[in-house]
Amino acid sequence: MSAPAPQKIIFTNDITPILVSLAAEMTPSSVFVVTDANVAAKVLPSLGLPSEWEVIAVPPGDTNKDLDSLALIWRSLTSGGATRKSLVVNIGGGVVTDMGGFAAATFKRGVRFINVPTTLLSAVDAAVGGKTGINFEGYKNEIGVFANADAVVISTVTFSTLPPVEILSGYAEMIKHSLLEDRESFGRLLAFDISEADADRLLHLLEESVRVKERIVTADPREKGIRRALNLGHTVGHAFESIALERHAPVPHGQAVAWGTLVEMILSHIKTGFPSGHLHTFASYLKNQGYGVPSITCDDYPRLISLMRHDKKNDTPDAINFTLLREVGEPMIDQTACEEEIKTALDIFRDLLQ
Amino acid sequence: MSAPAPQKIIFTNDITPILVSLAAEMTPSSVFVVTDANVAAKVLPSLGLPSEWEVIAVPPGDTNKDLDSLALIWRSLTSGGATRKSLVVNIGGGVVTDMGGFAAATFKRGVRFINVPTTLLSAVDAAVGGKTGINFEGYKNEIGVFANADAVVISTVTFSTLPPVEILSGYAEMIKHSLLEDRESFGRLLAFDISEADADRLLHLLEESVRVKERIVTADPREKGIRRALNLGHTVGHAFESIALERHAPVPHGQAVAWGTLVEMILSHIKTGFPSGHLHTFASYLKNQGYGVPSITCDDYPRLISLMRHDKKNDTPDAINFTLLREVGEPMIDQTACEEEIKTALDIFRDLLQ
Repeated sequence: MSAPAPQKIIFTNDITPILVSLAAEMTPSSVFVVTDANVAAKVLPSLGLPSEWEVIAVPPGDTNKDLDSLALIWRSLTSGGATRKSLVVNIGGGVVTDMGGFAAATFKRGVRFINVPTTLLSAVDAAVGGKTGINFEGYKNEIGVFANADAVVISTVTFSTLPPVEILSGYAEMIKHSLLEDRESFGRLLAFDISEADADRLLHLLEESVRVKERIVTADPREKGIRRALNLGHTVGHAFESIALERHAPVPHGQAVAWGTLVEMILSHIKTGFPSGHLHTFASYLKNQGYGVPSITCDDYPRLISLMRHDKKNDTPDAINFTLLREVGEPMIDQTACEEEIKTALDIFRDLLQ
Repeated sequence: MSAPAPQKIIFTNDITPILVSLAAEMTPSSVFVVTDANVAAKVLPSLGLPSEWEVIAVPPGDTNKDLDSLALIWRSLTSGGATRKSLVVNIGGGVVTDMGGFAAATFKRGVRFINVPTTLLSAVDAAVGGKTGINFEGYKNEIGVFANADAVVISTVTFSTLPPVEILSGYAEMIKHSLLEDRESFGRLLAFDISEADADRLLHLLEESVRVKERIVTADPREKGIRRALNLGHTVGHAFESIALERHAPVPHGQAVAWGTLVEMILSHIKTGFPSGHLHTFASYLKNQGYGVPSITCDDYPRLISLMRHDKKNDTPDAINFTLLREVGEPMIDQTACEEEIKTALDIFRDLLQ
C-alpha cells in the first residue's frame, strides 16, 4: 500500500463558516456528519451547521468503537443515498474521527472526508496521521486503513465543555511533540498554565504541536522509521494504563503518557546522557498542573515490565523497545533497555513525583 | 487516496512451488489461506500447500460476500495470532479474492496478500486492478478499498473443475480486452475453440489478456478516465443480467457481457462507423461456442433501456453512458446514445444471433 495523500489542516476558532466553505469547494453530491450522541447534544447545536447535512450519531466511548457502530455508519450512508461524490464530516473525539474516517475510506471504495476533532487529545493526535479504524475482538484498532482526511479543521472552542483531566491528557501529547522538536517548544509549553487556558493562545500552541506531528508523519507515513519517535512515552505509558485497568482504577491515556514520558526521559538520561535538568523541570510541571502520581510500589515493577514486553509495537518479543532522547529534539528510535535500567528509572520517577 | 502500489503477476501452471517461493521471499510471521468451502474441498487437496498454512474457509457464492463472512475472516486472523507481518493467500473465484483482499487490506491497517484466482473470470478480471470489497445492504461492492495484492499467481489448471458456462463467462471478458487492444488479439481469441481448451495454450492467451487490463489500470487506477474503457459491453450486459434476474431466470455475468459487447459493437457501428465485418465475425463466434440468445422481444426494450439508465457507472442520471469503439483497439469512453439508436442496435443484435 502506498502513502495516503496529503491533507489540508486549518486552525480556526470559527468552525462553521470554514466547514461550509470547504464543502462548497468540494461540490459534494451530499454531506453526512458523523458524530457521537454526546457531541450531537453538547456541540452540534452551537455550530449551526446547514440543515441539509444529515447527522449520523453513534453511541459514545471507546467501547462503542466497534463493528456494530461502523455498520451503523455504513448503513446510514447507504440508506441516505450517499454516492462516490458525497462528503463525510467527522465531528468528535478520536473514536469518531478514527471510525468515521474508516467508514468513509471504505464506503464505495472511498469517499472524501473532513475531520473536526472536538477534544484536545484528538486534535493533537488522532485527527492527523491517517490512522483510521475500529477495535475488534478486544484488540485496539485491530481493523482499519491508512487514509488521510481531505481536510482537518482544528479549533479550541469545543474544549470548554471538556473535563479538566481531558485537557491534561491532550496536553501531555503536545509536550511529547515538543520533546521531539526543540528546547524552545518544550519551554513554551511548560510556561503555559493549562488551568487558565486561553482558547486563542492554546490554538497557537496546538498548531505548533500538530505541525510537528505532520512533519514526522509526512516523512514516514507507514511507521517504518522516524514515525516511531511518536511512540515516546508510550511504552511505559501503556504499561501504566494497563496496570491501572487491571486494578479497576483506570487512568486517562494522556495522564499515563505524561508519566511514561517522564520515565522514558529518565531512561534517556541513564542510557544516553539526556540532561538531568529537563527531568526536574518536567517533574515540577506535572506536579503543579495536577497530573497526579500512579499508585505503584516496587512490587509492581515485574508486572509493569511484563506489560512493556508485550506492547504491540514490539517487533521482537524478547526485547523492550523504546524511543529515547539524546537531547530535546534528538529522538533515537528502536532503543532497548534491560530490566535493571527500567527498575532504576521507575525508582527515580517515584522519587521525582513524590 | 493515492494509487495502490504495483503488483507482481505470475503466470504458471505449477502453482504450489511458486507460492511457497513467493512466501519464502516475503518472510512472513505466519501464512493464512482464505478460500471458500467449495475450493477447500475440490482444489486445495491437489495443491498440497504447507500444512502450517492455516486455512480460513468462507461459505461459497456471491450471496455470502457479506459482512458476516468478512468478520469471520478477521476473527480467524485475530484468533490465529496474525501480526502485521503475516501473509494472506486468497485462493478462489472473485468473491474470495475481493473479500480476502479487503480483509487483508484492513487487518491491522493492512497486511500483505497474494491472490490465486481459480476461475477464468476471476483470473482475467477480479484478481487484477486493486478492487476489493463486499456487498452490503443489497448493493454490490458497496464497501471496500483499492488495494493491490503483492502478487497474483494465475494458472489455468484449476479451471478443469469449472462448468463450461463458467469458462464461456470468463472468455467473454478476454474478448472484451482484445477489442480494446488490437485486431490481432481479437482474431487470436476468435480462432480458439473454448470447448477443446488446452491449459497451456489458454494460459498464454490469458496472460495476453491480463496484460491489457494491467496496462489500462496502471494508466488510470482510480477509474477517472481510460479505465472506463473496461466498461465495454457492461452497460447493456448489466441490463441483460438484471432483466434475467427480475424474471427469475438468471444468466451468468460473462454470458450477459458477451451479448452486451455485441450490442455495443453494433452501437459503435451506428454511431462511429465501427466496421460491420467485426460484428458478423463476433456474432458467428458466439453462436458456434454456445453463448445462447437472451429471451427478449421488442416489448422488453423500454425496461432494458431503463435498466441501462440506472447503471451505477452513470454519473449523469439523464444520459446513458457507453464505451464505444471506432475500430478494434480504439475505444471511446463517455459516449452516449439515444433511445432510438439503442432500439435499432437491439433489433440488429437479435437478427444477428437468430
